[in-house]
Amino acid sequence: MSKGTLYIVSAPSGAGKSSLINALLETNPTYDMKVSVSHTTRGMRPGEAHGVHYNFVSVEEFKELAEQGAFLEHAEVFGNFYGTSRLWIEQQLDKGIDVFLDIDWQGAQQIRRQMPLAKSIFILPPSKDELERRLNARGQDSDAVIARRMDEARSEISHYTEYDYVIVNDDFDVALIDFKAIIRAERLKQDKQAAKYSSMLSALLAQQ
Amino acid sequence: MSKGTLYIVSAPSGAGKSSLINALLETNPTYDMKVSVSHTTRGMRPGEAHGVHYNFVSVEEFKELAEQGAFLEHAEVFGNFYGTSRLWIEQQLDKGIDVFLDIDWQGAQQIRRQMPLAKSIFILPPSKDELERRLNARGQDSDAVIARRMDEARSEISHYTEYDYVIVNDDFDVALIDFKAIIRAERLKQDKQAAKYSSMLSALLAQQ
Ligand SMILES: Nc1nc2c(ncn2[C@@H]2O[C@H](COP(=O)(O)OP(=O)(O)OP(=O)(O)O)[C@@H](O)[C@H]2O)c(=O)[nH]1
Ligand SMILES: Nc1nc2c(ncn2[C@@H]2O[C@H](COP(=O)(O)OP(=O)(O)OP(=O)(O)O)[C@@H](O)[C@H]2O)c(=O)[nH]1
Repeated sequence: MSKGTLYIVSAPSGAGKSSLINALLETNPTYDMKVSVSHTTRGMRPGEAHGVHYNFVSVEEFKELAEQGAFLEHAEVFGNFYGTSRLWIEQQLDKGIDVFLDIDWQGAQQIRRQMPLAKSIFILPPSKDELERRLNARGQDSDAVIARRMDEARSEISHYTEYDYVIVNDDFDVALIDFKAIIRAERLKQDKQAAKYSSMLSALLAQQ
Repeated sequence: MSKGTLYIVSAPSGAGKSSLINALLETNPTYDMKVSVSHTTRGMRPGEAHGVHYNFVSVEEFKELAEQGAFLEHAEVFGNFYGTSRLWIEQQLDKGIDVFLDIDWQGAQQIRRQMPLAKSIFILPPSKDELERRLNARGQDSDAVIARRMDEARSEISHYTEYDYVIVNDDFDVALIDFKAIIRAERLKQDKQAAKYSSMLSALLAQQ
């Protein structure tokens, strides 16, 4: 059996990254693909659950975990700490499960250095206007807040060239088909197929 | 606009390579993807047409074209010469069209050296028994002929590790979905998308 693939998925807020990952996972058996649940020091929001959306921890707990080497990567994003658990991910990959990391560009850079076989996907909004509209849609934010969000989005987008694949999320269904095609194609890579079909290949290559 | 991708497709005889390429091309607009028509010195078979299946030429004509540098690659396969036209392919790729080469492992090696951005796909039959059955199905061949074909197939298959992707053609419809996923995913590679969405990206990255 071949190891699972580690997928890094990044996007500016408002690109629809979480919805795409959720939709992908819903259509697949759980022994096949999983999303990593990060640790974060930001406060829990209404509708979020501990251990589901994040493992919510204090700054002290976070720093202790970081010192113990529990994180494969960690970064400060917009004033809060976020980190990816090393052990759980390695266990899933060893079982042949593909793991998805919803992390920012800083985390992506750290993962690439440590796991050069990881594949990275960047999700783009279809236009600047649409991005602004989506960032506005959340509520009655001040112009200053919207402007800051646009700045943060631009800063995240400026790293898109570091990613293996880029998906433009204009029509959600098309973007989901794109996402699935990438996963399907990656599973057809020669080394993955050689591991999956090793006994068939031995038979095909055996002398009479 | 970004350049088209050059796809090398190889397989042992009986793996269903030609049917897969034909099915792929039928579902796509011709300005999008094309198959390269090779030159060959082998005789025309019933049902084949000059300029459609191959450009059928004499050994002298073939050697002259080879000396003129008209071939991107050429090789002797099972006693006949086969070659891929350089000029036509470069023209298609420049127009952004993906080009498919149905060539053997020797040609694949030459193309990889000259066009390192080419992607290669190997098609496998689902089992040794099924391969033998498919090679037999053609007619009343002698055991010696079948044994030679199996040898040739094994020799081609032994090069599958040199390819980027491997498709197992057990169920034809599934293999076709695999084939399409590879093309779709390759078009989502960062450099292709950056070229396709260059003006949108400039707008997203512009300061207010
Ligand atoms: N480096 C790193 N980044 C993370 C991790 N977990 C989440 N992030 C990123 O932190 C950013 C903020 O995430 P959230 O706190 O969920 O905030 P949000 O406003 O819902 O963000 P969006 O999901 O982008 O809309 C996003 O870009 C996430 O991808 C992690 O473990 N490591
Ligand atoms: N190197 C090289 N190989 C080629 C070229 N054109 C065809 N071939 C290969 O030559 C082999 C023989 O092709 P054909 O003469 O069409 O014979 P066939 O029995 O129909 O072969 P299959 O299509 O494999 O069933 C196949 O493996 C082709 O992929 C070419 O331009 N260059």
